[in-house]
Amino acid sequence: MAKVTCIGLGPGDPDLMSVRAHRLLTSARIVAYFRKPGREGQARRMVEGLIPAGAEEWPMEYPVTTEIPVQDPGYNAALAPFYDHWAARLRSADADVVVLCEGDPFLYGSFMHLQSRLPAGMVGVVPGIPGMVGCWHATGQPVTWGDDVLTVLPATLPEAELARRVADTDALVVMKIGRNLAKLRRVLAAAGRLPEAWLVEHGTMPAERVRLLAEVGEEAPYFSIAIIHGKGRRP
Amino acid sequence: MAKVTCIGLGPGDPDLMSVRAHRLLTSARIVAYFRKPGREGQARRMVEGLIPAGAEEWPMEYPVTTEIPVQDPGYNAALAPFYDHWAARLRSADADVVVLCEGDPFLYGSFMHLQSRLPAGMVGVVPGIPGMVGCWHATGQPVTWGDDVLTVLPATLPEAELARRVADTDALVVMKIGRNLAKLRRVLAAAGRLPEAWLVEHGTMPAERVRLLAEVGEEAPYFSIAIIHGKGRRP
Repeated sequence: MAKVTCIGLGPGDPDLMSVRAHRLLTSARIVAYFRKPGREGQARRMVEGLIPAGAEEWPMEYPVTTEIPVQDPGYNAALAPFYDHWAARLRSADADVVVLCEGDPFLYGSFMHLQSRLPAGMVGVVPGIPGMVGCWHATGQPVTWGDDVLTVLPATLPEAELARRVADTDALVVMKIGRNLAKLRRVLAAAGRLPEAWLVEHGTMPAERVRLLAEVGEEAPYFSIAIIHGKGRRP
Repeated sequence: MAKVTCIGLGPGDPDLMSVRAHRLLTSARIVAYFRKPGREGQARRMVEGLIPAGAEEWPMEYPVTTEIPVQDPGYNAALAPFYDHWAARLRSADADVVVLCEGDPFLYGSFMHLQSRLPAGMVGVVPGIPGMVGCWHATGQPVTWGDDVLTVLPATLPEAELARRVADTDALVVMKIGRNLAKLRRVLAAAGRLPEAWLVEHGTMPAERVRLLAEVGEEAPYFSIAIIHGKGRRP
């Protein structure tokens, strides 16, 4: 049975991949990655120039991404057979497969839906620097000091829940922003925290952009991340 | 003026250092690291065999670690001159300095206290895989799924605050456990979450140990981390 290893690629800059992930990638025979149909895919773009000549590429194209709200039963109904299909394909691979994952595979990654469908003995996972870590580095400041509490929220949560949690933490990371930007801005303003919130797009990538969230217009990419830095103890 | 670059070493396994950190380390002329007096130091131990022959080593020995509670004014009074001293020494280095940092330097790292004392132009920081990421990988399971909320808490917080926050999150990471283990166990039990809590010591290191927190005795190392996995949406 071939081995399936998911490697965390880190936040974007290929130089921030781990030594182990880099070694697995640059010696891979089959490289698989998720993407939206018709797109190159974020993970694939990160490894441009690092996949060995002659390696097979298996793009795993999501049947649905943000067209169906995640609360809709149709969302799981569309994704479950997709993961079933690719788990079967990986199980019957005739060489070891490296699966690419942006950030860290165990922090909101999609690979977990394949892992849960594969025999434990055939799966390996290599940690990566999470995207949020790259984004707080893009701001040039530590995210937590001393005894700060850090809360990580998906912006997809209901507005009332976001509001309650944003008002009750020292440091804050908000993921999955995209079309939830206006809601997030209302919540931050209501909590009096809008002036200290940053929006980071494409952290550590060539297109990196860091702005005060208050100064951002109506739209942000799905993979942008909001950051509020903690204020803890500073000797 | 020499350059001072703090490199995140990741959770422990040197193979999980970033390609950039590895390159800077293995070509360094001066390597500085924090440690407790009389100890080798966790960061130094992680890079055994990777520091070039002939490189100078500058151990920066904390005047105090856990002997004084962090709420005590004596804590900052002891640490401020220590950071002042080393910032001055780094500023006058006659070659570039690589400063080692376990995990990610911007997540509860000590380097920030040197960075805030140095001219911005002379400082660089390389992100690393945080220790908590290595610990959730040691459990073999994803920490967040779907729209899970993740809360990161230092166990040094007051018991009532820990209790409130532990009861109000999907996924949980607790850092800085050490002598706060008994308090943390009471809090988890009161919230009904003790059965699902893991304690990871030395995640990704040769001494890695993963246990249900309920089965741990009276003591845990300061660098152990508690994990509760989220239960979010699973297609």
